Amino acid sequence: MKKYLLGIDLGGTFIKGGILNSDGTVVTIKQIPSERELGKEKVSNNIVKLVNELISSTKISLNDCKGLGIGIPGMVDAKTGEVIFANNLNWKNFNIVKYLKEKLDIEIKIGNDANLACLGEYKFGGGKSFENLIFITLGTGVGGGVIIDGKLLEGNMGAGAELGHSVIVCDGRKCTCGRKGCLETYASATALIKSAKEEALKNPESKLNLFEIDGKLPFTLYNEDLSAKKVVDEYINYLACGLINFANIFRPEAILIGGGISNQGDNLIKPLQKILDEEIYAGNAGPKVILKTGCLKNDAGFIGAAALFC
Amino acid sequence: MKKYLLGIDLGGTFIKGGILNSDGTVVTIKQIPSERELGKEKVSNNIVKLVNELISSTKISLNDCKGLGIGIPGMVDAKTGEVIFANNLNWKNFNIVKYLKEKLDIEIKIGNDANLACLGEYKFGGGKSFENLIFITLGTGVGGGVIIDGKLLEGNMGAGAELGHSVIVCDGRKCTCGRKGCLETYASATALIKSAKEEALKNPESKLNLFEIDGKLPFTLYNEDLSAKKVVDEYINYLACGLINFANIFRPEAILIGGGISNQGDNLIKPLQKILDEEIYAGNAGPKVILKTGCLKNDAGFIGAAALFC
Repeated sequence: MKKYLLGIDLGGTFIKGGILNSDGTVVTIKQIPSERELGKEKVSNNIVKLVNELISSTKISLNDCKGLGIGIPGMVDAKTGEVIFANNLNWKNFNIVKYLKEKLDIEIKIGNDANLACLGEYKFGGGKSFENLIFITLGTGVGGGVIIDGKLLEGNMGAGAELGHSVIVCDGRKCTCGRKGCLETYASATALIKSAKEEALKNPESKLNLFEIDGKLPFTLYNEDLSAKKVVDEYINYLACGLINFANIFRPEAILIGGGISNQGDNLIKPLQKILDEEIYAGNAGPKVILKTGCLKNDAGFIGAAALFC
Repeated sequence: MKKYLLGIDLGGTFIKGGILNSDGTVVTIKQIPSERELGKEKVSNNIVKLVNELISSTKISLNDCKGLGIGIPGMVDAKTGEVIFANNLNWKNFNIVKYLKEKLDIEIKIGNDANLACLGEYKFGGGKSFENLIFITLGTGVGGGVIIDGKLLEGNMGAGAELGHSVIVCDGRKCTCGRKGCLETYASATALIKSAKEEALKNPESKLNLFEIDGKLPFTLYNEDLSAKKVVDEYINYLACGLINFANIFRPEAILIGGGISNQGDNLIKPLQKILDEEIYAGNAGPKVILKTGCLKNDAGFIGAAALFC
């Protein structure tokens, strides 16, 4: 009987994959370089290689798996199996499902990576009890996924849920997408680091100047350095602005936060929840929106891809 | 056989209602004052009165109608029939369905008025061919509704789709909801009038000073007055910012615009579509989002309420 799930998270640098039991517990995980500079066929062949390595590291055969799910960092047409546009991979209009079907004898589905991370948290992670859920990842960029009545919001041709590319500061910071003031330019880890560097330059006496600035440092120095505190407070205000927008637009039961910044846990969640409770539409007259961190961490991608088959 | 639809649009000033054929064509329409200052029972009794007047003006009996749909200007729990919060009516936690059931022998459903206007445009209006659709009304405020895969987005306890209350200018204009910089404070008719009045004050020579300023005047004077042009151009930029946010979040097939400002037609739609096409995520690599005006105008509310039964 086919009872295992197979998921792949295709990233710009690494391809990560795993085999799961039907309850989402992980049987095995592996990771290999994507080698995106060698082109789309080579990257696709690397996926085949990783799948074969996963299979051969266990007693499970490909035939024991319900299907292979793949998370793509870009816009995909899940129905046809085509990657419409993947900026980081430099791919455009490539039918990866068709290509892989010739090399792997298994049903294959694809989805946007951030959407699938959301699906993973919903099926097997921190979002299990919520039928209406938003998952937002704060990393190099700001990715997002939305579950409505237990179903992933995909939008026309899978192009929806680009939550990081909604403007919160009209004519604000320039975004890679071409717009100005996207949430991503204020709430990604990259944005936090940028703000901290600017603040450090302005204040030579700040302790931010004593260390290499990463997404953790401003939080670490929060209670002992005014510049660090200012950077974090502003970061949280911008992030709250975006989250409350999504809360008002979707009114989900919960918003889960993932990505590197989510490791700050309560230092992030508690002040965000306070602002959200104060500013959400109709305040406490309406239903509460719970904020929490995701729990699948860096595995959300391939677990969510695997979840396409459960 | 029950083949007619009965819909009511409960507003702060008027209650408007109608009986429709099953294809959405209108059999009869009537409107009476809400008398909200006389309290929720009086308003509810006015709904009963209007329903009876509608029925008695035709040869259709209540028993010939599939049900009665009511659009409420506020947050509702469609499952229980309770109005959670309706600011304009000054209602909180009132089960209007239970109240009306004792006076009208018909199945009754309620929904948020802006959501139902969207449903009306989807079932019987300008959104008929789109399974993924956003409807936004530009009037006193900015209301919105969202159709995803043919189904209305309601959110937890029907509190979703508050599209007007998403911030596009962090720390911007003060909004009635308590936040600062909501789309409503830049893109409602009220906001347009406010901007035009400010601009007129700053420029005594502007023709805006020669007339009473309403939501039409800046558009009317667009080609003959620089201040009017500036006000309209800025208005369209802010509105485009909000619409592109929704396009990136939902990637619908179309966005329909209703409310008083939508009467500007192409003068509004054409410049908006140009900005949207330029700035939408992934540009023309992704699927196009069509902008158009709604076609049910002031009837969208009761037609959408009636559509709850088709």
